[in-house]
Amino acid sequence: MDPALINFKVLYVLTQLCGLTMIVLVGTWIGQHFGGLAGTSNPGVEFNWHPLFMTIGFIYLYGNSILIYRGFRTTRKKTLKLTHAGIHMGAFILTVIALKTVFDSHNLANPPIPNMYSLHSWLGLSAVIIFSLQYVAGFVAFLAPGLRENYRIAMMPLHIYFGLFGFVLAIASALMGITEKAIFAIKTPAYSTLPPAGVLANVIGVLYVVFGALVVYLATEPSYKRKPIPEDTALLNSSSANE
Amino acid sequence: MDPALINFKVLYVLTQLCGLTMIVLVGTWIGQHFGGLAGTSNPGVEFNWHPLFMTIGFIYLYGNSILIYRGFRTTRKKTLKLTHAGIHMGAFILTVIALKTVFDSHNLANPPIPNMYSLHSWLGLSAVIIFSLQYVAGFVAFLAPGLRENYRIAMMPLHIYFGLFGFVLAIASALMGITEKAIFAIKTPAYSTLPPAGVLANVIGVLYVVFGALVVYLATEPSYKRKPIPEDTALLNSSSANE
Repeated sequence: MDPALINFKVLYVLTQLCGLTMIVLVGTWIGQHFGGLAGTSNPGVEFNWHPLFMTIGFIYLYGNSILIYRGFRTTRKKTLKLTHAGIHMGAFILTVIALKTVFDSHNLANPPIPNMYSLHSWLGLSAVIIFSLQYVAGFVAFLAPGLRENYRIAMMPLHIYFGLFGFVLAIASALMGITEKAIFAIKTPAYSTLPPAGVLANVIGVLYVVFGALVVYLATEPSYKRKPIPEDTALLNSSSANE
Repeated sequence: MDPALINFKVLYVLTQLCGLTMIVLVGTWIGQHFGGLAGTSNPGVEFNWHPLFMTIGFIYLYGNSILIYRGFRTTRKKTLKLTHAGIHMGAFILTVIALKTVFDSHNLANPPIPNMYSLHSWLGLSAVIIFSLQYVAGFVAFLAPGLRENYRIAMMPLHIYFGLFGFVLAIASALMGITEKAIFAIKTPAYSTLPPAGVLANVIGVLYVVFGALVVYLATEPSYKRKPIPEDTALLNSSSANE
């Protein structure tokens, strides 16, 4: 096998382990230290859906959706495109729920907590908006029929750049979010004495960065690029023939 | 002129404007709202060197040093390498001073504030360590004589990847740092009511992201890549002849 592909596979498995550990640790963090999960009757605990679903949806699924083209190299391009759009839809739904729970946790608190004042909220919402615009643009450019091939080719570098930019911005926002939660909620003993809840917060932050760095590396290293398979060409030819 | 080069120049000028505005606003932020600058006799205000010098050194100079290969395309490669190492040395010196002032502001406070407990400190110091290791590795691989050409070629993608990774991690750390300072220091009126100091903090954070996104784009877009000039080839030939 191509040595580049062996490296790719090792790093791909490491990425998954890192991502799954990250999700388990976020679950542990909110379960052990902040009361687990709740509905609107307990807005302070309802908040905990926010880091959990953002980590699963807006980081883990988003990253994996980016990687499927290189990870599943023998699958037909058309199937990969639909899977890419499908996983991203899952990421989007979890992200919207995660946004609802954070607004609930502010609006239903007594007294209510102001919304959208922090840098975390400004950049986090920007990342969600970039992701959503990308979804619409990607759908029009690469899934819906009708757009001419030269437009598709011209759109691709922008789609890749803004896809990775949104993903990195989501991770940066998560780091600010963890920082906020640690400062606001780790009080007895204080975050500054590095109690277990504080160490866990920092370890989760480090895992976000490692996961992000691995995804971006696997998605951009030229020697890991998927090569078109015969079925892709057949599909391209038949779709050109239909135009 | 090549249309790609015109785009490059427009974005390059925008990047500089964004970077300089970011530095001016950090200066305004600490000057207007946190008492300006001071020495060890006033550790709370001495802290302010930290965001100022990190912004100038670890973000603005670091970013510009990455860009010089593409920005100064008619300058000889050897000159660019030395300038790249020189600007990075300037960035490193400012970063070390910025680290000293933050440790001073913790250790000399009464009572002292613990060091290295926050996610900002863990990831920020990681970024500085990655930057320093890159400096040494880059010096050995690309400036010091003796390393064989095929090793240099093999090192280059890693040097580029870890250079950009350290830069993005520096920006993510700055965003966490701004978040911490805003929560700890914007009290009357509270950050959550978005007073001028809070709005300014968030605008600085947005500028960090825009500056970072522009630098990474300008440094990675293939059509902006610098083409070797005749002097580079002459130099390569003469250095091969000397080996």
